[in-house]
Amino acid sequence: MNLHSAPRKALGGLVGFLGLLLALGFQPVTTKAKKDKAGVSSATCYECHDEVKVMKEGSKHAKLACEVCHDDLSRHVDSGGTEKPVTRIDPAICGNCHKNQYQSFFKVNLEGSARREKGIPAGRSPMQDKLLAGHGFTFEHNEPRGHAFMVIDQFAVDRFQAGRFQFKKGWKGVTEAGKTWDVLEDKGPLFKLPESAMAANPTCMQCKTSDHLLKWKYMGDKDIRARWDRTSSPVDVAKDTHYPVGCVHCHDPHGTQPRVVRDALIQAIEREGAKGLFAKDGKTDLKVIDFRDFRKIGVMQKTDSRMMCAQCHVEYNCNTGAQWSDGKRVGYDDQRTNHFPLQNAKTLLAHYKKLDFYDFKHAVTGARLIKLQHPETEAFAGSAHDKAGVQCHQCHMPKQKGVDGKVFSTHGVIRPLAEVKASCIGCHPKGGVEARRYEIETVRNYIKGKMRKSEYWIGRLIDTYVIAKRAGVTEEVLAKAREKHEEAHVLWEFWTAENSDGFHNPELARETLTGAIKAAKDGVDLLNQAIDAKPQAASK
Amino acid sequence: MNLHSAPRKALGGLVGFLGLLLALGFQPVTTKAKKDKAGVSSATCYECHDEVKVMKEGSKHAKLACEVCHDDLSRHVDSGGTEKPVTRIDPAICGNCHKNQYQSFFKVNLEGSARREKGIPAGRSPMQDKLLAGHGFTFEHNEPRGHAFMVIDQFAVDRFQAGRFQFKKGWKGVTEAGKTWDVLEDKGPLFKLPESAMAANPTCMQCKTSDHLLKWKYMGDKDIRARWDRTSSPVDVAKDTHYPVGCVHCHDPHGTQPRVVRDALIQAIEREGAKGLFAKDGKTDLKVIDFRDFRKIGVMQKTDSRMMCAQCHVEYNCNTGAQWSDGKRVGYDDQRTNHFPLQNAKTLLAHYKKLDFYDFKHAVTGARLIKLQHPETEAFAGSAHDKAGVQCHQCHMPKQKGVDGKVFSTHGVIRPLAEVKASCIGCHPKGGVEARRYEIETVRNYIKGKMRKSEYWIGRLIDTYVIAKRAGVTEEVLAKAREKHEEAHVLWEFWTAENSDGFHNPELARETLTGAIKAAKDGVDLLNQAIDAKPQAASK
Amino acid sequence: MNLHSAPRKALGGLVGFLGLLLALGFQPVTTKAKKDKAGVSSATCYECHDEVKVMKEGSKHAKLACEVCHDDLSRHVDSGGTEKPVTRIDPAICGNCHKNQYQSFFKVNLEGSARREKGIPAGRSPMQDKLLAGHGFTFEHNEPRGHAFMVIDQFAVDRFQAGRFQFKKGWKGVTEAGKTWDVLEDKGPLFKLPESAMAANPTCMQCKTSDHLLKWKYMGDKDIRARWDRTSSPVDVAKDTHYPVGCVHCHDPHGTQPRVVRDALIQAIEREGAKGLFAKDGKTDLKVIDFRDFRKIGVMQKTDSRMMCAQCHVEYNCNTGAQWSDGKRVGYDDQRTNHFPLQNAKTLLAHYKKLDFYDFKHAVTGARLIKLQHPETEAFAGSAHDKAGVQCHQCHMPKQKGVDGKVFSTHGVIRPLAEVKASCIGCHPKGGVEARRYEIETVRNYIKGKMRKSEYWIGRLIDTYVIAKRAGVTEEVLAKAREKHEEAHVLWEFWTAENSDGFHNPELARETLTGAIKAAKDGVDLLNQAIDAKPQAASK
Repeated sequence: MNLHSAPRKALGGLVGFLGLLLALGFQPVTTKAKKDKAGVSSATCYECHDEVKVMKEGSKHAKLACEVCHDDLSRHVDSGGTEKPVTRIDPAICGNCHKNQYQSFFKVNLEGSARREKGIPAGRSPMQDKLLAGHGFTFEHNEPRGHAFMVIDQFAVDRFQAGRFQFKKGWKGVTEAGKTWDVLEDKGPLFKLPESAMAANPTCMQCKTSDHLLKWKYMGDKDIRARWDRTSSPVDVAKDTHYPVGCVHCHDPHGTQPRVVRDALIQAIEREGAKGLFAKDGKTDLKVIDFRDFRKIGVMQKTDSRMMCAQCHVEYNCNTGAQWSDGKRVGYDDQRTNHFPLQNAKTLLAHYKKLDFYDFKHAVTGARLIKLQHPETEAFAGSAHDKAGVQCHQCHMPKQKGVDGKVFSTHGVIRPLAEVKASCIGCHPKGGVEARRYEIETVRNYIKGKMRKSEYWIGRLIDTYVIAKRAGVTEEVLAKAREKHEEAHVLWEFWTAENSDGFHNPELARETLTGAIKAAKDGVDLLNQAIDAKPQAASK
Repeated sequence: MNLHSAPRKALGGLVGFLGLLLALGFQPVTTKAKKDKAGVSSATCYECHDEVKVMKEGSKHAKLACEVCHDDLSRHVDSGGTEKPVTRIDPAICGNCHKNQYQSFFKVNLEGSARREKGIPAGRSPMQDKLLAGHGFTFEHNEPRGHAFMVIDQFAVDRFQAGRFQFKKGWKGVTEAGKTWDVLEDKGPLFKLPESAMAANPTCMQCKTSDHLLKWKYMGDKDIRARWDRTSSPVDVAKDTHYPVGCVHCHDPHGTQPRVVRDALIQAIEREGAKGLFAKDGKTDLKVIDFRDFRKIGVMQKTDSRMMCAQCHVEYNCNTGAQWSDGKRVGYDDQRTNHFPLQNAKTLLAHYKKLDFYDFKHAVTGARLIKLQHPETEAFAGSAHDKAGVQCHQCHMPKQKGVDGKVFSTHGVIRPLAEVKASCIGCHPKGGVEARRYEIETVRNYIKGKMRKSEYWIGRLIDTYVIAKRAGVTEEVLAKAREKHEEAHVLWEFWTAENSDGFHNPELARETLTGAIKAAKDGVDLLNQAIDAKPQAASK
Repeated sequence: MNLHSAPRKALGGLVGFLGLLLALGFQPVTTKAKKDKAGVSSATCYECHDEVKVMKEGSKHAKLACEVCHDDLSRHVDSGGTEKPVTRIDPAICGNCHKNQYQSFFKVNLEGSARREKGIPAGRSPMQDKLLAGHGFTFEHNEPRGHAFMVIDQFAVDRFQAGRFQFKKGWKGVTEAGKTWDVLEDKGPLFKLPESAMAANPTCMQCKTSDHLLKWKYMGDKDIRARWDRTSSPVDVAKDTHYPVGCVHCHDPHGTQPRVVRDALIQAIEREGAKGLFAKDGKTDLKVIDFRDFRKIGVMQKTDSRMMCAQCHVEYNCNTGAQWSDGKRVGYDDQRTNHFPLQNAKTLLAHYKKLDFYDFKHAVTGARLIKLQHPETEAFAGSAHDKAGVQCHQCHMPKQKGVDGKVFSTHGVIRPLAEVKASCIGCHPKGGVEARRYEIETVRNYIKGKMRKSEYWIGRLIDTYVIAKRAGVTEEVLAKAREKHEEAHVLWEFWTAENSDGFHNPELARETLTGAIKAAKDGVDLLNQAIDAKPQAASK
């Protein structure tokens, strides 16, 4: 983005929100930047960048030298702006001051383990291989680990790039949460594990890392100013990805304002407007800034972690698919491959039908299915906790006392069930930790029961479909059964993709999972009736 | 029951057992009864109720004033008996003296959790949805919690009244073990959760509460003197149910004698006589008293907790069904809807055939199935522990020391596996707690293996049946296969309904579960033979 | 074996390795041998047995009197060798000095439990009943306990001898690890539990006990000098089995040299030669001694626990089967019923095809399947740990400090996951116990995922086969599908039979399990194509 091609004055109204904008002209590097030995004072920078001045001066970052994050400044100044400075993206820079937050983010929880496949009997989605038949997730689909691993785990999973990216130290590397390419290695383009998939795409990575903020146009559209877009080689983008989601995803680096940067979220909030998940009295506290048709960011007056977390913890589409209307393929050139519905399980299918997009066809029934991502935001919206004004960080990033004695919000985002005292007891002290654990487990028990029943019935629908098709049941009936499959699938998979086993919103979980059961049963019934109505079935 | 219509002299022979009988004339209330301010002395009561005098005077309750449990006595006396006094049924009244027993009964074990669905992969009945297809239990069927929750959990389960009764405080209410309608609320007659059932009936509740002892005729038959009978509205009976099973279920309140009050148990013990489960040398220590064709109670000279617990922990029928002989419906007007077989898995099917009753037809095969309830009593009967004279309370209600230093039998009925020291070590000290735990787990491992195998084979029978039917296998063969299903089902489900995973009687469990496997395999074989014998199968 | 029929001189070259050879002439007894009261000095023995002299004198056992292990020596001497002395086989004799080793071997780990069926949802082989249909293991197949139980558990399992051998004390006996017939009882030849199998054979027992070392000819062939052979009655051999695998399986009793005695292992190592699993630079450190066509032992210069453990922890065949070439039965008279392939999952099927042997036909598809035993050795071979020179004992028998303060290798062979500190930290201290546990669990998570996927697809292959056969798909296609089943089966079952959930060699596990998935998918595809190509399928 070419900032000096725009009149400086025109930018006056944006002061306070322009940190990122300015940064867009910088060329980020991922190796440690050379120290700018000349020393360029803030005053020098402010001579041209007064919007940064306004932002910084009014904030807690006021006293930080520009060189903290930017390098090659004297070359930049000496060249009159032609030579771009370097923006350092290592979150450790923020960590120099925000030690507790930084260290908690990267602390590895050794009580867990990695690569816990969901599709096993006691896993989150025991019948996944049958119910997702035909989708890449059937090759490997694991319970998530912490944020520190989000890039590493995405790249290493068998379905991402056929196993091309492996842990450098093999199984000994799985506890390391460092820079991507310190931990992983590229086995090369010819490397391919059997029974793997190539499901990577550049859009998906925009939820895992902040590295590409300055290289990615709004919505991932192609642009000469953008190094990466939706159609870029996933391998190339991966190789340029070094850190998991960074501080700047949620915090403006110049002005410290709470913010969001994920394009499809901003698009969805603008699209949904007053009826959106985050709206209160018809509006959200999100000021969206459009940077000359290149990027948008959304800045809040007050932290709303529901929106911050919604940058990733939502159902989103990032892959190719096809159209309901005519079955035609939707490729990466189509903006629908970077899309946040922001709808819960009840309205999601209708939304995708209106969008004219579905992800894949079920390998057995041919039903047109939506592959759900982690829709925690949509699940939580409208829940008892949401209505009470609780936001994500209150349970998942509770206050802790650091080694330095300072109280801080842990950025090692936690599983409340494992830390009930920190997460729940502040608001719900009655009965203590054990009572809270009991209640949480009870919700999960109940919803897991409904998930398993949904799976049983969708499984039966699939099995019955095969029989019906081979028995010569008419396409009209089969089409109706596929519709029931499509309906049941979204209502069910929403909850196995979601990471709370229903706790985020047990009422919605119950309502929609029983909807899945009902739809699947209806499908089974209509198929069985058609099979049994055929003369062959009776006469044979 | 109208006591003064019977000559007082005729009752003379019953003294000592008449506490309840007298009480039958009283109108119980469930709200805290008004204190009888006038003060009526026992002597006054004894003027008319000399049988109570005899019972009480000879017992530890001798010094208790009648007003401890009965209110409005002066009105009763003043009216010459026309106005009925009030009998208070809150077990807290007993708890005033029996603090340890009372408190242990209502203590909530926060190490557990609620609503653990049995029909999930690692649950007690992983294939339940398939094997019980067509039965209400497929809507929600949970691992049981403690006695304090027995009414609450029964009313709140999705299959009871379509979810009409919900926790007042939602999921925060699940740890509360208070009075039913302090914890639950009625969402009203129009409220209906999807994928739920309406499986409630008044008889079933007679095992969960003692509230209706004075309002329920023997066997739940209709009677002008009975407020509730088998055909009453389950909702009305539920609304009048305030406490879980009370002290008076097992302890005579006037005389403290060990007793049983559940009608169908008394009927079954009388019916089975010398060959019954509890008989020793041809008789049981149970004196059955018939109160003028209204109620019966059974009083023991010595505590036999096997009979006390058998009031609920048995297979019983409390619902409508149909007849083996002609398929006709058996409604609540029929006494067979309140029936205890007191038979173990080996003889149960024959018993129900003789009774000409089955519960439901399997949705897929149409086999006529028995839905088992918790047959712990029948499972235990004849086991090594039973033969050694061990009774239920010795393992499940071990002696403890109360906060007051007194030793008492805990009434918070425990799971021995969780409290091996208290339950087992007194008799089996060798090797200590860990050896006992090891042995218990070993039994359960082995029997769980057999249960899972039974389920596998019954599942195959169901699947093969569908294929056979559609392949045109003759009704003669199909009928034989259904018979195998009927046989296998009872032998299997007995053990998933039973709550010990076979520990109560591993030998019986092994014998009958392998019987289930055998029957199911036989069914599969005869169906497969018939399918493969059909010319179409070969020529196609 | 008749030692004095051979010229003494001819044996000269064997000194140092002849301990067992001499012992072969002795008649072992299993009851405590009568004390040889006369007292025979070593010098007397050495007069005839100078090879023993050489062995013992050069070893730590030099000062042990012969009477420590041999009884009735004076009778032997007095008879001029005609009367045989008695060799005592109770490992407690070794335990007199090697207390720590002995006690650790027989210590019962009460944290576990017995009879954990593998074929349950959360077990090691959840779909076993379907995938092994037709094989005896479907009657009972448990997770293994420690070595102290290896004979007891083998005899007591339902599939061994139809339950004829039961715990004397019933379920209370399961924690006892004593002599076989102190713990078990024989219910007699008429005793038969339903749903059990008769899968016992004498060869299988040679991996569980050392009791028959002197009674069993090489490879179990018939011989007048051998009390037992492959065709002996399993019951008779069982009744003569008193101890689990003993010290002498791995340690030469006279000379303390590390050794192996299991015949089929020795045969396999000789057969495989330079390309064998244990070979380094084209040879193994195993000197095989053939005792005049009766027995062989293999003696090492240096301990190689990979070979010691390979005496049992391998895939081996010990049962009857049939030939690939013509389907003819292979009986116990055939040496192929005592066979160690020493091949990993990749080459195993080809090996068995070349051997012209398979175990059983799958009950549904008729595919000719290999039933795998515990191939830990083959799994480990070539792994990262193996390449680094790690042997079994380093992880499974780590050094401990005994109560006497002496450091020793625990002979209570451990599960490293339960004792990470002892097993792993010595070599891999970084990150400590929790990091190691995390890594181990991660490997297991990943491989379990692949196992469950394999099972899903082999299950689908079986189900689809039935449909295809009934749809009249040609035998040519069915045969191809069976081949895919045969291939997939070996690649999969190797890993459920193996006891590390893939940790011994995750790379091999991944490669071969995905091979199983691929083969099964191919089978499903070709069947489905054939079904759908049939005109009936379309027209019906």
